[in-house]
Amino acid sequence: MKLDLKDNERLDDLVIQGLKIIQNERQFCFSLDAVLLAHFAKVKKRAHVLDLGTGTGVIALLLSTRQTEKIDALELNPVMADLAARNVELNALQEKIVVHEGDLCNIREIFPAEFVDLVVSNPPYRPLEQGDLNLLSDVAKARHEVTATLQDVVKAARYCLKFRGRFAMVHLPERIGEIIIAMHEAGIEPKRLRFVHPRLGKAPNMVLVEGIAGAKPGGMLVEPPLIVYGSDGSYAREIVEYYQER
Amino acid sequence: MKLDLKDNERLDDLVIQGLKIIQNERQFCFSLDAVLLAHFAKVKKRAHVLDLGTGTGVIALLLSTRQTEKIDALELNPVMADLAARNVELNALQEKIVVHEGDLCNIREIFPAEFVDLVVSNPPYRPLEQGDLNLLSDVAKARHEVTATLQDVVKAARYCLKFRGRFAMVHLPERIGEIIIAMHEAGIEPKRLRFVHPRLGKAPNMVLVEGIAGAKPGGMLVEPPLIVYGSDGSYAREIVEYYQER
Repeated sequence: MKLDLKDNERLDDLVIQGLKIIQNERQFCFSLDAVLLAHFAKVKKRAHVLDLGTGTGVIALLLSTRQTEKIDALELNPVMADLAARNVELNALQEKIVVHEGDLCNIREIFPAEFVDLVVSNPPYRPLEQGDLNLLSDVAKARHEVTATLQDVVKAARYCLKFRGRFAMVHLPERIGEIIIAMHEAGIEPKRLRFVHPRLGKAPNMVLVEGIAGAKPGGMLVEPPLIVYGSDGSYAREIVEYYQER
Repeated sequence: MKLDLKDNERLDDLVIQGLKIIQNERQFCFSLDAVLLAHFAKVKKRAHVLDLGTGTGVIALLLSTRQTEKIDALELNPVMADLAARNVELNALQEKIVVHEGDLCNIREIFPAEFVDLVVSNPPYRPLEQGDLNLLSDVAKARHEVTATLQDVVKAARYCLKFRGRFAMVHLPERIGEIIIAMHEAGIEPKRLRFVHPRLGKAPNMVLVEGIAGAKPGGMLVEPPLIVYGSDGSYAREIVEYYQER
């Protein structure tokens, strides 16, 4: 495919199965959290997946290497939805991944109910505080709950999930209480947690969480901590292995 | 004080400030979880504390060495309530600690509303499953929710806590979702978590959780993991230090 980079765009290598990704330096660029989420999510055979707020499409691209059958990816920002669609073309994945431009707050007008096995999301992490209303840049909107709250994301996930389908999200540890309550109230029971720590002995700076739609409460599996950097500053073995699969 | 051990009782040293404790080998004996909870709890100056389900009284004894003014300790099992009261006498702490025999499900008949700054609890960890109804030994009752559920403990704590008072509990990681939901529903917002791991790289086997009565949701502090045993099998430095304070 002919590569057609627009202003402020750059081409990056996802290092996994030859996947490439275009990112826009003036927009939100993916980071380690997306990679961790794509590995944390349990993907069953021939799974139909939905990525809520796909951004560059990075999670959809990474999940295309798992045993997924079809991936729908939703993005509100038209610049990013266009970028995600071009990233799908760039990797010749149009048969598997479909990017939709739309607002997850109007999910019922975009998708049917209970149509996917797995919903993934790397949503905006920070609540909108008083005084934040001048966060008008696209990057700020991708980081703050300007267009959708945590509760909106969880409700949209529940609407799209089949009974017993899974919802996997990466978020901030400081919001884990709200996440668990929002999932429970939406009918997705949180069942698996993994905290991500920058270094040994440090507090976590990310949390990976998975819930099951329609499950009974209780029975959380809290996995061993994921420590990102070793004492020499290099990536931990587990993360290096993400890049060496297959 | 003259020591008067009954059948099956033994005298142990708490190793902290010369505290001694009688335990009954046929009843529930305290373990590391109680010690960790007593250190995790934030105790403000001249705090009035309530220990729900005090057992041997170990947490009340340990908290007596902090800046507490008064500690009420509630225990349902009459054998244990008697033992806890004797442990208070053994350490000459009758001025500070009062043991009450009673059922936390009838908390309103035992204590006034909103009378303490801190509630601590090391409750039964395991829900009652079908087929468990023959768990009739006192040890089984102390380990399973035979006489009070997690929700009962949290509601009793909320009733006794002053506005902005704290509730600190030790429990199983597999129940952290239920704990957060139960606290939120009872009006105690979970604000601080610490997972306790037996060894480096292992999943946690205990969780310490603190909530604040009447607080707004959100803003969880997830503390660095507490790793109990070092690679040589000895207690980690932090736990050794618990025994070397003052």
